Amino acid sequence: MTETAAHPTDYTPTDRTVPTRSRERAAYDRETVHAILDEGYVCHLGFVRDGAPVVLPTLYGRVGERLYVHGSTGSRPLRMAGRTDPGLPVCLTVTHVDGLVLARSAFHHSINYRSVVVHGVAHQVTDPDERREALDALVDHVVPGRSYDSRPANDKELAATAVLRLDLAEVSAKVRTGGPSDEPEDIGLPHWTGVVPLRKGYGTPLPADDLDPAIGLPDYLAGL
Amino acid sequence: MTETAAHPTDYTPTDRTVPTRSRERAAYDRETVHAILDEGYVCHLGFVRDGAPVVLPTLYGRVGERLYVHGSTGSRPLRMAGRTDPGLPVCLTVTHVDGLVLARSAFHHSINYRSVVVHGVAHQVTDPDERREALDALVDHVVPGRSYDSRPANDKELAATAVLRLDLAEVSAKVRTGGPSDEPEDIGLPHWTGVVPLRKGYGTPLPADDLDPAIGLPDYLAGL
Repeated sequence: MTETAAHPTDYTPTDRTVPTRSRERAAYDRETVHAILDEGYVCHLGFVRDGAPVVLPTLYGRVGERLYVHGSTGSRPLRMAGRTDPGLPVCLTVTHVDGLVLARSAFHHSINYRSVVVHGVAHQVTDPDERREALDALVDHVVPGRSYDSRPANDKELAATAVLRLDLAEVSAKVRTGGPSDEPEDIGLPHWTGVVPLRKGYGTPLPADDLDPAIGLPDYLAGL
Repeated sequence: MTETAAHPTDYTPTDRTVPTRSRERAAYDRETVHAILDEGYVCHLGFVRDGAPVVLPTLYGRVGERLYVHGSTGSRPLRMAGRTDPGLPVCLTVTHVDGLVLARSAFHHSINYRSVVVHGVAHQVTDPDERREALDALVDHVVPGRSYDSRPANDKELAATAVLRLDLAEVSAKVRTGGPSDEPEDIGLPHWTGVVPLRKGYGTPLPADDLDPAIGLPDYLAGL
């Protein structure tokens, strides 16, 4: 089945989300975008401060077509989003590196990766219910289900926490898979060529020093 | 031995590289910064386009106190750096996620991470020798030693490749390690608490379909 950019399950490409090169690697379907976002732990949040770019790693969470980041009410981007009307222009990027692509030619060396770039304007969330939902999403993004097995934020903690929302609207994914693409005239060169996959996994959970030994590892961690 | 910010092995902190919070996590020594940079495969490069931030994942390489990124001469940031005098203001960030920090309170959930943020102005590299050195560094950053076991770029490829240099000057690292830091009044809560380490590793190298079977896996890959 051929999907077009006009299909309602796709994000509409814009000038900013159509790459200048390797356009065949771009994807705009929600399924691909959501999967890449949901697999990451940290996004790189870009904003402009005094005319210069700033890129900071930060946790994030997704609720449907909304992304949330949070931080101290004193942190720079969150202060700036609070000060700025109507919001803070941001670019939020999530990247997974899947493999090292070793071509025969230096020029064609690459990596296999999956990335999502979101352009938009981030707004401070003030509605109490949405703030709680966002904070739960941030915890559950780290470990699904964890928000049900931790103490929710109290009023003091909520007052110290700023939450930013970024709607998923101007969004693209970019994906490279497969082997090297060497020039035909290089095929006979005596260099090993192929892909070195990168693997990610979990180590054994380390209980905190002060954990009551009677509290065993919860199922949602035992299954990692 | 105590190092101070004035020690010559340190980067000098600036307004942009002193965090507004968690200052105890900031580091400015070259050893920490170089180690974090050298372990990464992809950086997130931020720049400003039409007043809005753009954050793109890209390969990078380090030669001493210089970072290099490269791309097609047609790619946006590389075109912009070529057009812009005196260079393109950028922020280049590299992040490693080392563990998931599960506190008893939702508020104190965190991750263990190591990141480096570099602020500066990127310049197009035009000197042919420096361009070759930079391209070798980019390949060797993916797999150390690989530039000696691949065909160097030819004139046509060099002409199609733009190289940007960013000097390591306004630089900081930020590192979180260790367990959760719960509030004393939460110690008795019935939630498992601790750290889930994240592991990275290499899978078995996959030879390209058209690789001559007589070409075995090189030592620099067998040791991964």
